[in-house]
Amino acid sequence: MKALFRYLLTLILFGSALAQAGESSTCLTRGTGDMGIIVERASGSLKVVDRSAHSVLFQVDGLGDLSHASAVYSRDARYAYVFGRDGGLTKVDILCGKIVNRVIQGGNSIGGAISQDGTLIAVSNYEPGGVKIFSAEDLSLVLDIPATKVTDKRGAKTVGLVDAPDQLFVFSLYDTGEIWVVDMSNPKQPQITKHQNVGLQPYDALITGDGRYYIAGLFGEDGLAMMDLWHPEKRPGKILEHYGKGDKKLPVYKMPHLEGWAMAGDEAFLPAMGQHQVLVAKRGEWKETGRIKVHGQPVFVMARPDGRQVWVNFAFPNNDTIQVIDTESKQVVKTLKPGKGALHMEFSPRGEEVWISIRDLDEVHVFSTRTMELTHKLKVKKPSGIFFTNRAHQTGL
Amino acid sequence: MKALFRYLLTLILFGSALAQAGESSTCLTRGTGDMGIIVERASGSLKVVDRSAHSVLFQVDGLGDLSHASAVYSRDARYAYVFGRDGGLTKVDILCGKIVNRVIQGGNSIGGAISQDGTLIAVSNYEPGGVKIFSAEDLSLVLDIPATKVTDKRGAKTVGLVDAPDQLFVFSLYDTGEIWVVDMSNPKQPQITKHQNVGLQPYDALITGDGRYYIAGLFGEDGLAMMDLWHPEKRPGKILEHYGKGDKKLPVYKMPHLEGWAMAGDEAFLPAMGQHQVLVAKRGEWKETGRIKVHGQPVFVMARPDGRQVWVNFAFPNNDTIQVIDTESKQVVKTLKPGKGALHMEFSPRGEEVWISIRDLDEVHVFSTRTMELTHKLKVKKPSGIFFTNRAHQTGL
Repeated sequence: MKALFRYLLTLILFGSALAQAGESSTCLTRGTGDMGIIVERASGSLKVVDRSAHSVLFQVDGLGDLSHASAVYSRDARYAYVFGRDGGLTKVDILCGKIVNRVIQGGNSIGGAISQDGTLIAVSNYEPGGVKIFSAEDLSLVLDIPATKVTDKRGAKTVGLVDAPDQLFVFSLYDTGEIWVVDMSNPKQPQITKHQNVGLQPYDALITGDGRYYIAGLFGEDGLAMMDLWHPEKRPGKILEHYGKGDKKLPVYKMPHLEGWAMAGDEAFLPAMGQHQVLVAKRGEWKETGRIKVHGQPVFVMARPDGRQVWVNFAFPNNDTIQVIDTESKQVVKTLKPGKGALHMEFSPRGEEVWISIRDLDEVHVFSTRTMELTHKLKVKKPSGIFFTNRAHQTGL
Repeated sequence: MKALFRYLLTLILFGSALAQAGESSTCLTRGTGDMGIIVERASGSLKVVDRSAHSVLFQVDGLGDLSHASAVYSRDARYAYVFGRDGGLTKVDILCGKIVNRVIQGGNSIGGAISQDGTLIAVSNYEPGGVKIFSAEDLSLVLDIPATKVTDKRGAKTVGLVDAPDQLFVFSLYDTGEIWVVDMSNPKQPQITKHQNVGLQPYDALITGDGRYYIAGLFGEDGLAMMDLWHPEKRPGKILEHYGKGDKKLPVYKMPHLEGWAMAGDEAFLPAMGQHQVLVAKRGEWKETGRIKVHGQPVFVMARPDGRQVWVNFAFPNNDTIQVIDTESKQVVKTLKPGKGALHMEFSPRGEEVWISIRDLDEVHVFSTRTMELTHKLKVKKPSGIFFTNRAHQTGL
């Protein structure tokens, strides 16, 4: 009887040990430095990848509408915060391959950012307009910043949201031509500075890697709006005005992205809206120093992390092509045709590889940047954005 | 009898499940993005730290002589490779807080680097001179590069070893005034290019964050040797020559470090050897554009990641002091006296904090860079170098 009792007790203990082991065995004990996520836009899912092994670790489902989705990482590089088009903000544990929290925070989300100290997640919305700021820990609402009203019901679309040093968030208002700076260094007393009349229809923005210059592209006029965050007392100014002057206007097939802009040495490489050109400008003065003719309307113009090359992809009907520019000679040195829908690129942090989503092939292609040759392929359903964990440590991504 | 048999079987299974659980419980399942190590120089040990919680996770013992030790990280940010003064190369698993491999690779090691693709670890040696390259996986020897002979027995001391894009390692030879470039893109056929007569006694070097310019400080003459790695066909040249001309020579109490150099915008901030000055030079032209008078002989001159501030520490007898320079006004804006032996600093990757080892207090102090005030203290025995895991993703660290 005593033996039976012991046996049963042991069985219970053993069962609970197994259950625990079972639970932890779905999570990985590994470094997160070489991991990443790839957005599967059509199925509301993600692939969690191992960048070193070029392999898929997990598929995560249930993220809603992921067309045009973007993501940021917690500072421990364990959690991805995914901003979906349906206003969903989803926190994903990439070590366990599962969603740990999800809120619908707006009607039509267009991007987000994580604060310098990692405690706050900001999301910008097309509808109803404005920015909401959440706790990175539990996604509880910390601050709601409505946009300037355009109609009784609708606020201005907010775009180009980035984080900046000293616990700032910066974003632009499309309909009303504004740039707002939100200082969250004391989250109980947020300070919002509003700059009006910065230019017509800012549609996207970038911040330099050092967090100093915030630059918004303008859809309503040639040129860009630029703000020097080291001098918040100065109004945002215009740069590269009239860059399209005298050129025949082309229909814009896809808005270019500024997030994936390129800085090589002290020169910036920017997509020219609606034109088959990449603009080159000098940092600081921000004067145009050159133009490079390319294969189509550029969408992403991205520098290899060392600035030696710039990789460019294009709007329809040229989205089967990638071009590589040598930043010193300003020449196109390679034209690749990986397949239709080559819409997103991500460099490995030290630049030896670039991963490219080829939507219509359901594949991600990995190229060596030194040889510019294909080295690996991964099967991914309708892949779009690729986000590696080193973004956790960078400003403005 | 059958019950007893089952009972025993269960006991065995249960015991083995417990043993497994026990083993895995010593390892952490967590993101490695906000982790780091702090070298305890006197006791041959490390503290593994949580940068977000400002807490110690593990102590790791048995690393030999760690005076002047440095470290690099694997690309998954799980393993630290520690280069000890006794020639020891130790691979530490920071998720489990233990040494996984250790080799004595030379007589007197002075630093190391990890290749762009993460597969190779290079170590430079004072004695016997030269560089050895190991597999990052198992620390097996891949390549031995003896230095130029100085005597029958001894090769030149090798210093300033860095990694560079396209799978390069670059280093300098102190006694013979050389810079060597090793191309490991085909590890079976390494290509070594030797540049002679680059200047008298290069003692340390840096590489710009983009991996383009390799700059070696010269102990035997004023000025620095500079090599443009985008143009390997050009010989290394001299920059900032005669910077000490006309100044009274002071005894050098501690060699300044160039690894922790500072680039803010397009200006570099460099320690002036033996003088109470920080030199400012323009990137690209590398002409002197200014000098900043500081409290003592600078050792580390380090930029906050956004380039807004430069933090400087000093050689004996001024090593109780830290000064903060505003990079725009070029003024010293703060003088801190945290304690004697304030010899190492490390910024959080996005710059909101700086951690400073205060050797004689057995403490690491954490400062907010925005307020320049002390926010946290950690107890660490004779702390020296601090290395956060985001270094895994950067060139030349």
